[in-house]
Amino acid sequence: MQIAIVLFDRFTALDAVGPYETLGRLPDAETVFVAEQAGPVRSDTGALALTADRTLAEVRSPDIVVVPGGPGQSAQMENEALLDWLRTADGTSTWTTSVCTGSLLLAAAGLLAGRRATSHWLALDFLRRYGVEPTGERVVFDGKYVTAAGVSSGIDMGLTLVGRIAGDEHAQAVQLLTEYDPQPPYDAGSPEKASAHLVEQFRAKSRFILT
Amino acid sequence: MQIAIVLFDRFTALDAVGPYETLGRLPDAETVFVAEQAGPVRSDTGALALTADRTLAEVRSPDIVVVPGGPGQSAQMENEALLDWLRTADGTSTWTTSVCTGSLLLAAAGLLAGRRATSHWLALDFLRRYGVEPTGERVVFDGKYVTAAGVSSGIDMGLTLVGRIAGDEHAQAVQLLTEYDPQPPYDAGSPEKASAHLVEQFRAKSRFILT
Repeated sequence: MQIAIVLFDRFTALDAVGPYETLGRLPDAETVFVAEQAGPVRSDTGALALTADRTLAEVRSPDIVVVPGGPGQSAQMENEALLDWLRTADGTSTWTTSVCTGSLLLAAAGLLAGRRATSHWLALDFLRRYGVEPTGERVVFDGKYVTAAGVSSGIDMGLTLVGRIAGDEHAQAVQLLTEYDPQPPYDAGSPEKASAHLVEQFRAKSRFILT
Repeated sequence: MQIAIVLFDRFTALDAVGPYETLGRLPDAETVFVAEQAGPVRSDTGALALTADRTLAEVRSPDIVVVPGGPGQSAQMENEALLDWLRTADGTSTWTTSVCTGSLLLAAAGLLAGRRATSHWLALDFLRRYGVEPTGERVVFDGKYVTAAGVSSGIDMGLTLVGRIAGDEHAQAVQLLTEYDPQPPYDAGSPEKASAHLVEQFRAKSRFILT
Protein backbone atom coordinates (compact mmCIF):
# COMPACT_ATOMS: atom_id res chain seq x y z
CA MET A 1 0.00 0.00 0.00
CA GLN A 2 1.66 3.22 -1.19
CA ILE A 3 1.04 6.43 0.78
CA ALA A 4 2.07 9.66 -0.96
CA ILE A 5 2.49 12.72 1.26
CA VAL A 6 2.67 15.92 -0.77
CA LEU A 7 5.10 18.68 0.18
CA PHE A 8 5.20 22.28 -1.05
CA ASP A 9 7.04 25.38 0.06
CA ARG A 10 5.87 26.69 3.47
CA PHE A 11 3.75 23.67 4.43
CA THR A 12 3.18 23.06 8.15
CA ALA A 13 5.43 20.22 9.28
CA LEU A 14 3.12 18.58 11.83
CA ASP A 15 0.34 18.44 9.20
CA ALA A 16 2.52 16.02 7.27
CA VAL A 17 4.29 14.23 10.12
CA GLY A 18 1.12 13.34 12.07
CA PRO A 19 -0.29 11.15 9.25
CA TYR A 20 3.21 9.89 8.40
CA GLU A 21 3.73 8.60 11.95
CA THR A 22 0.33 6.85 12.05
CA LEU A 23 -0.66 5.83 8.50
CA GLY A 24 2.96 5.00 7.80
CA ARG A 25 2.65 2.19 10.35
CA LEU A 26 -0.03 0.37 8.36
CA PRO A 27 0.98 -3.20 7.51
CA ASP A 28 2.97 -3.21 4.24
CA ALA A 29 2.85 0.57 3.99
CA GLU A 30 5.33 2.27 1.68
CA THR A 31 5.31 5.97 2.49
CA VAL A 32 6.80 8.37 -0.01
CA PHE A 33 7.18 12.13 0.33
CA VAL A 34 6.59 13.82 -3.02
CA ALA A 35 6.87 17.36 -4.39
CA GLU A 36 7.13 19.04 -7.76
CA GLN A 37 10.88 18.77 -7.44
CA ALA A 38 12.73 16.21 -5.37
CA GLY A 39 14.92 17.47 -2.55
CA PRO A 40 14.46 19.46 0.64
CA VAL A 41 11.21 21.41 1.03
CA ARG A 42 11.06 24.15 3.67
CA SER A 43 8.22 24.34 6.16
CA ASP A 44 6.35 27.51 7.14
CA THR A 45 8.76 28.61 9.86
CA GLY A 46 11.77 28.28 7.58
CA ALA A 47 13.57 26.34 10.31
CA LEU A 48 12.84 22.85 9.03
CA ALA A 49 13.15 21.05 5.72
CA LEU A 50 11.70 17.64 4.91
CA THR A 51 13.05 15.76 1.94
CA ALA A 52 10.78 14.95 -0.98
CA ASP A 53 12.31 11.69 -2.21
CA ARG A 54 10.31 11.61 -5.41
CA THR A 55 8.79 14.06 -7.86
CA LEU A 56 5.05 14.12 -8.41
CA ALA A 57 5.67 12.73 -11.89
CA GLU A 58 7.35 9.66 -10.43
CA VAL A 59 4.42 8.70 -8.19
CA ARG A 60 1.28 8.44 -10.28
CA SER A 61 -1.06 6.08 -8.51
CA PRO A 62 -0.62 6.00 -4.74
CA ASP A 63 -3.24 4.12 -2.72
CA ILE A 64 -3.48 6.96 -0.20
CA VAL A 65 -2.89 10.63 -0.93
CA VAL A 66 -2.15 12.97 2.00
CA VAL A 67 -2.18 16.72 1.44
CA PRO A 68 -0.96 18.88 4.33
CA GLY A 69 -1.73 22.57 4.68
CA GLY A 70 0.08 25.58 5.97
CA PRO A 71 0.63 29.20 4.96
CA GLY A 72 2.14 28.01 1.66
CA GLN A 73 -1.16 26.50 0.55
CA SER A 74 -2.47 29.77 -0.87
CA ALA A 75 0.41 30.00 -3.36
CA GLN A 76 -0.57 26.54 -4.70
CA MET A 77 -4.26 27.23 -5.32
CA GLU A 78 -3.69 27.90 -9.02
CA ASN A 79 -0.68 25.64 -9.49
CA GLU A 80 -2.03 23.40 -12.25
CA ALA A 81 0.95 21.03 -12.00
CA LEU A 82 -0.05 20.17 -8.45
CA LEU A 83 -3.82 20.30 -9.03
CA ASP A 84 -3.54 18.05 -12.10
CA TRP A 85 -1.46 15.60 -10.12
CA LEU A 86 -4.08 15.56 -7.37
CA ARG A 87 -6.84 14.84 -9.91
CA THR A 88 -4.82 12.06 -11.53
CA ALA A 89 -3.76 10.47 -8.25
CA ASP A 90 -7.32 10.72 -6.98
CA GLY A 91 -8.50 8.85 -10.06
CA THR A 92 -7.02 5.62 -8.72
CA SER A 93 -6.56 6.26 -4.99
CA THR A 94 -8.38 4.28 -2.35
CA TRP A 95 -8.33 7.24 0.05
CA THR A 96 -7.70 10.91 -0.65
CA THR A 97 -6.95 12.84 2.51
CA SER A 98 -5.91 16.23 3.81
CA VAL A 99 -4.91 17.98 7.01
CA CYS A 100 -5.52 21.65 7.79
CA THR A 101 -5.72 23.90 4.70
CA GLY A 102 -4.74 20.95 2.53
CA SER A 103 -8.49 20.51 2.04
CA LEU A 104 -8.54 23.82 0.16
CA LEU A 105 -6.12 22.29 -2.34
CA LEU A 106 -8.35 19.24 -2.76
CA ALA A 107 -11.27 21.65 -3.18
CA ALA A 108 -9.38 23.75 -5.73
CA ALA A 109 -8.70 20.56 -7.69
CA GLY A 110 -12.46 20.04 -7.78
CA LEU A 111 -12.37 16.88 -5.74
CA LEU A 112 -14.63 17.92 -2.87
CA ALA A 113 -17.54 19.57 -4.70
CA GLY A 114 -20.83 18.66 -3.05
CA ARG A 115 -19.07 16.96 -0.17
CA ARG A 116 -18.66 17.70 3.54
CA ALA A 117 -15.14 18.56 4.64
CA THR A 118 -13.13 20.27 7.33
CA SER A 119 -10.03 22.46 7.44
CA HIS A 120 -8.10 24.66 9.85
CA TRP A 121 -10.77 26.54 11.83
CA LEU A 122 -9.59 29.86 10.40
CA ALA A 123 -10.03 28.59 6.83
CA LEU A 124 -13.32 26.69 7.08
CA ASP A 125 -15.43 29.30 5.30
CA PHE A 126 -13.20 29.24 2.23
CA LEU A 127 -14.38 25.73 1.43
CA ARG A 128 -17.75 27.18 0.39
CA ARG A 129 -16.14 28.92 -2.59
CA TYR A 130 -15.57 25.47 -4.06
CA GLY A 131 -19.03 24.12 -3.38
CA VAL A 132 -17.91 22.24 -0.30
CA GLU A 133 -19.94 22.08 2.90
CA PRO A 134 -17.66 23.01 5.80
CA THR A 135 -17.98 21.29 9.15
CA GLY A 136 -16.07 21.97 12.34
CA GLU A 137 -15.63 18.26 13.12
CA ARG A 138 -12.07 17.15 13.69
CA VAL A 139 -12.00 14.26 11.21
CA VAL A 140 -14.55 14.07 8.40
CA PHE A 141 -15.20 11.05 6.19
CA ASP A 142 -17.23 11.54 3.00
CA GLY A 143 -16.84 8.57 0.72
CA LYS A 144 -13.14 8.02 0.16
CA TYR A 145 -12.34 11.62 1.12
CA VAL A 146 -11.02 12.16 4.62
CA THR A 147 -10.28 15.69 5.77
CA ALA A 148 -8.85 16.72 9.13
CA ALA A 149 -8.97 20.03 10.97
CA GLY A 150 -5.87 22.08 11.85
CA VAL A 151 -2.28 20.84 12.18
CA SER A 152 -2.34 18.30 15.05
CA SER A 153 -5.61 16.72 13.89
CA GLY A 154 -3.70 14.70 11.30
CA ILE A 155 -2.74 12.32 14.11
CA ASP A 156 -6.41 11.61 14.88
CA MET A 157 -7.15 11.29 11.17
CA GLY A 158 -4.26 8.90 10.65
CA LEU A 159 -5.25 6.67 13.55
CA THR A 160 -8.88 6.63 12.49
CA LEU A 161 -7.94 5.64 8.96
CA VAL A 162 -5.55 2.95 10.19
CA GLY A 163 -8.52 1.50 12.09
CA ARG A 164 -10.70 1.51 8.98
CA ILE A 165 -8.03 -0.12 6.84
CA ALA A 166 -6.30 -2.53 9.20
CA GLY A 167 -8.75 -2.93 12.06
CA ASP A 168 -9.10 -1.55 15.57
CA GLU A 169 -6.38 -3.64 17.12
CA HIS A 170 -3.74 -2.51 14.67
CA ALA A 171 -4.75 1.12 15.18
CA GLN A 172 -4.57 0.66 18.95
CA ALA A 173 -1.09 -0.82 18.56
CA VAL A 174 -0.03 2.29 16.66
CA GLN A 175 -1.58 4.49 19.34
CA LEU A 176 0.28 2.58 22.07
CA LEU A 177 3.59 2.62 20.19
CA THR A 178 3.36 6.37 19.67
CA GLU A 179 2.12 6.71 23.27
CA TYR A 180 -0.73 8.89 22.06
CA ASP A 181 -2.42 9.52 25.37
CA PRO A 182 -2.74 13.28 24.99
CA GLN A 183 -2.65 15.45 28.10
CA PRO A 184 -2.65 19.04 26.87
CA PRO A 185 -1.81 21.47 29.69
CA TYR A 186 -4.66 23.76 28.57
CA ASP A 187 -8.06 23.29 27.01
CA ALA A 188 -7.74 25.91 24.28
CA GLY A 189 -7.38 23.80 21.16
CA SER A 190 -10.49 24.88 19.29
CA PRO A 191 -12.28 28.19 18.77
CA GLU A 192 -15.12 26.91 20.96
CA LYS A 193 -12.76 26.21 23.85
CA ALA A 194 -10.19 29.01 23.65
CA SER A 195 -10.85 32.48 25.04
CA ALA A 196 -12.95 34.71 22.79
CA HIS A 197 -10.14 37.25 22.97
CA LEU A 198 -7.58 34.85 21.44
CA VAL A 199 -10.00 33.67 18.79
CA GLU A 200 -10.73 37.24 17.76
CA GLN A 201 -7.01 38.08 17.62
CA PHE A 202 -6.40 35.22 15.20
CA ARG A 203 -9.46 36.06 13.12
CA ALA A 204 -8.32 39.68 12.81
CA LYS A 205 -4.84 38.62 11.67
CA SER A 206 -6.17 36.02 9.27
CA ARG A 207 -8.24 38.59 7.41
CA PHE A 208 -4.95 39.85 5.99
CA ILE A 209 -3.50 36.42 5.29
CA LEU A 210 -6.39 34.31 4.00
CA THR A 211 -7.97 36.17 1.13
CA MET B 1 16.11 32.31 22.23
CA GLN B 2 17.85 29.52 20.34
CA ILE B 3 16.30 26.03 20.34
CA ALA B 4 18.53 23.20 19.12
CA ILE B 5 16.80 19.98 18.09
CA VAL B 6 19.23 17.11 17.75
CA LEU B 7 18.90 14.60 14.92
CA PHE B 8 20.59 11.23 14.51
CA ASP B 9 20.08 8.29 12.20
CA ARG B 10 16.79 6.42 12.83
CA PHE B 11 15.25 9.01 15.17
CA THR B 12 11.44 9.07 15.41
CA ALA B 13 10.16 12.03 13.41
CA LEU B 14 7.20 13.02 15.60
CA ASP B 15 9.52 13.10 18.65
CA ALA B 16 11.31 16.01 17.00
CA VAL B 17 8.42 17.67 15.16
CA GLY B 18 6.07 17.89 18.17
CA PRO B 19 8.43 20.18 20.13
CA TYR B 20 9.43 22.01 16.94
CA GLU B 21 5.81 22.91 16.19
CA THR B 22 5.16 24.16 19.75
CA LEU B 23 8.43 25.47 21.24
CA GLY B 24 9.35 26.85 17.84
CA ARG B 25 6.42 29.25 18.22
CA LEU B 26 7.90 30.93 21.29
CA PRO B 27 8.34 34.66 20.80
CA ASP B 28 11.75 35.35 19.21
CA ALA B 29 12.50 31.64 18.90
CA GLU B 30 15.24 30.59 16.51
CA THR B 31 14.94 26.85 15.99
CA VAL B 32 17.87 24.99 14.50
CA PHE B 33 18.07 21.31 13.64
CA VAL B 34 21.55 19.97 14.39
CA ALA B 35 23.40 16.70 13.84
CA GLU B 36 26.97 15.47 13.75
CA GLN B 37 26.97 16.21 10.05
CA ALA B 38 24.76 18.74 8.29
CA GLY B 39 22.34 17.44 5.66
CA PRO B 40 19.42 15.03 5.54
CA VAL B 41 19.00 12.63 8.46
CA ARG B 42 16.75 9.59 7.99
CA SER B 43 14.05 8.74 10.50
CA ASP B 44 13.34 5.25 11.85
CA THR B 45 11.02 4.15 9.04
CA GLY B 46 13.51 5.16 6.35
CA ALA B 47 10.72 6.99 4.52
CA LEU B 48 11.45 10.48 5.81
CA ALA B 49 14.51 12.68 6.09
CA LEU B 50 14.71 15.94 8.02
CA THR B 51 17.52 18.33 7.24
CA ALA B 52 20.08 19.18 9.89
CA ASP B 53 20.99 22.73 8.91
CA ARG B 54 23.97 22.93 11.24
CA THR B 55 26.55 20.62 12.72
CA LEU B 56 26.76 20.11 16.47
CA ALA B 57 30.07 22.00 16.40
CA GLU B 58 28.36 25.06 14.94
CA VAL B 59 25.76 25.34 17.71
CA ARG B 60 27.50 25.44 21.05
CA SER B 61 25.21 27.23 23.46
CA PRO B 62 21.53 26.90 22.63
CA ASP B 63 19.04 28.15 25.22
CA ILE B 64 16.91 25.03 24.85
CA VAL B 65 18.17 21.57 23.89
CA VAL B 66 15.65 19.03 22.56
CA VAL B 67 16.70 15.39 22.19
CA PRO B 68 14.26 13.09 20.41
CA GLY B 69 14.34 9.33 20.68
CA GLY B 70 13.64 6.42 18.39
CA PRO B 71 15.19 3.08 17.53
CA GLY B 72 18.41 4.85 16.54
CA GLN B 73 19.00 6.03 20.11
CA SER B 74 20.71 2.80 21.16
CA ALA B 75 23.48 3.28 18.57
CA GLN B 76 24.22 6.70 20.10
CA MET B 77 24.60 5.61 23.72
CA GLU B 78 28.39 5.48 23.49
CA ASN B 79 28.84 8.15 20.84
CA GLU B 80 31.12 10.51 22.74
CA ALA B 81 30.85 13.21 20.07
CA LEU B 82 27.13 13.49 20.77
CA LEU B 83 27.36 12.91 24.54
CA ASP B 84 30.12 15.54 24.87
CA TRP B 85 28.05 18.00 22.90
CA LEU B 86 25.08 17.34 25.17
CA ARG B 87 27.22 18.00 28.26
CA THR B 88 28.65 21.19 26.79
CA ALA B 89 25.28 22.52 25.57
CA ASP B 90 23.73 21.64 28.92
CA GLY B 91 26.42 23.69 30.65
CA THR B 92 24.81 26.90 29.43
CA SER B 93 21.25 25.86 28.49
CA THR B 94 18.21 27.27 30.23
CA TRP B 95 16.24 24.06 29.56
CA THR B 96 17.49 20.62 28.57
CA THR B 97 14.69 18.44 27.26
CA SER B 98 13.95 15.09 25.67
CA VAL B 99 11.13 13.11 24.12
CA CYS B 100 10.80 9.33 24.20
CA THR B 101 14.12 7.47 24.47
CA GLY B 102 15.95 10.77 24.09
CA SER B 103 16.03 10.75 27.90
CA LEU B 104 18.33 7.71 27.76
CA LEU B 105 20.82 9.84 25.82
CA LEU B 106 20.61 12.60 28.44
CA ALA B 107 21.07 9.89 31.07
CA ALA B 108 24.06 8.37 29.24
CA ALA B 109 25.62 11.84 29.17
CA GLY B 110 25.30 11.85 32.96
CA LEU B 111 22.86 14.74 33.02
CA LEU B 112 19.96 13.07 34.81
CA ALA B 113 21.72 11.27 37.68
CA GLY B 114 19.67 11.52 40.86
CA ARG B 115 16.75 13.09 39.01
CA ARG B 116 13.24 11.97 38.11
CA ALA B 117 12.59 11.47 34.41
CA THR B 118 10.35 9.72 31.92
CA SER B 119 10.81 7.97 28.58
CA HIS B 120 8.91 5.78 26.16
CA TRP B 121 6.97 3.33 28.33
CA LEU B 122 8.94 0.39 26.93
CA ALA B 123 12.24 2.01 27.92
CA LEU B 124 11.44 3.41 31.36
CA ASP B 125 13.36 0.78 33.32
CA PHE B 126 16.58 1.50 31.45
CA LEU B 127 16.78 4.89 33.15
CA ARG B 128 17.69 3.15 36.42
CA ARG B 129 21.01 2.01 34.92
CA TYR B 130 22.06 5.65 34.95
CA GLY B 131 20.88 6.45 38.45
CA VAL B 132 17.69 8.06 37.22
CA GLU B 133 14.33 7.56 38.90
CA PRO B 134 11.80 6.60 36.22
CA THR B 135 8.23 7.84 36.38
CA GLY B 136 5.36 7.05 34.08
CA GLU B 137 4.13 10.66 34.00
CA ARG B 138 3.76 12.17 30.55
CA VAL B 139 5.83 15.32 31.10
CA VAL B 140 8.32 15.50 33.95
CA PHE B 141 10.05 18.65 35.19
CA ASP B 142 13.07 18.28 37.49
CA GLY B 143 14.96 21.53 37.71
CA LYS B 144 15.79 22.63 34.19
CA TYR B 145 15.40 19.08 32.86
CA VAL B 146 12.14 18.30 31.12
CA THR B 147 11.55 14.79 29.83
CA ALA B 148 8.50 13.58 27.93
CA ALA B 149 7.12 10.07 27.44
CA GLY B 150 6.81 8.37 24.03
CA VAL B 151 6.66 10.03 20.61
CA SER B 152 3.47 12.17 20.66
CA SER B 153 4.11 13.43 24.22
CA GLY B 154 6.57 16.00 22.85
CA ILE B 155 3.56 18.12 21.88
CA ASP B 156 2.37 18.22 25.50
CA MET B 157 5.93 18.88 26.67
CA GLY B 158 6.39 21.70 24.18
CA LEU B 159 3.12 23.41 25.10
CA THR B 160 3.82 23.07 28.81
CA LEU B 161 7.27 24.61 28.40
CA VAL B 162 5.91 27.42 26.22
CA GLY B 163 3.56 28.21 29.12
CA ARG B 164 6.44 28.29 31.62
CA ILE B 165 8.57 30.52 29.42
CA ALA B 166 6.08 32.83 27.72
CA GLY B 167 2.97 32.55 29.88
CA ASP B 168 -0.32 30.72 29.67
CA GLU B 169 -1.90 32.97 27.07
CA HIS B 170 0.93 32.49 24.59
CA ALA B 171 0.82 28.73 25.10
CA GLN B 172 -2.94 28.75 24.57
CA ALA B 173 -2.44 30.73 21.36
CA VAL B 174 -0.04 28.03 20.14
CA GLN B 175 -2.55 25.35 21.11
CA LEU B 176 -5.31 27.14 19.21
CA LEU B 177 -3.14 27.78 16.15
CA THR B 178 -2.15 24.11 15.98
CA GLU B 179 -5.77 23.17 16.76
CA TYR B 180 -4.55 20.80 19.45
CA ASP B 181 -7.88 19.54 20.67
CA PRO B 182 -7.04 15.84 20.58
CA GLN B 183 -9.80 13.35 19.88
CA PRO B 184 -8.12 9.97 19.57
CA PRO B 185 -10.50 7.35 18.15
CA TYR B 186 -9.35 4.85 20.80
CA ASP B 187 -8.18 5.04 24.39
CA ALA B 188 -5.12 2.83 24.06
CA GLY B 189 -2.30 5.35 24.29
CA SER B 190 -0.58 4.09 27.44
CA PRO B 191 0.22 0.65 28.85
CA GLU B 192 -2.38 1.27 31.59
CA LYS B 193 -5.11 1.93 29.02
CA ALA B 194 -4.29 -0.46 26.15
CA SER B 195 -5.27 -4.12 26.26
CA ALA B 196 -2.94 -6.33 28.31
CA HIS B 197 -2.53 -8.46 25.21
CA LEU B 198 -1.11 -5.59 23.13
CA VAL B 199 1.13 -4.43 25.96
CA GLU B 200 2.57 -7.92 26.37
CA GLN B 201 3.15 -8.22 22.60
CA PHE B 202 5.22 -5.04 22.62
CA ARG B 203 7.11 -6.02 25.76
CA ALA B 204 8.00 -9.38 24.24
CA LYS B 205 9.30 -7.76 21.06
CA SER B 206 11.20 -5.09 22.94
CA ARG B 207 13.19 -7.67 24.90
CA PHE B 208 15.05 -8.32 21.66
CA ILE B 209 15.44 -4.66 20.73
CA LEU B 210 16.15 -2.85 23.99
CA THR B 211 19.09 -4.58 25.62
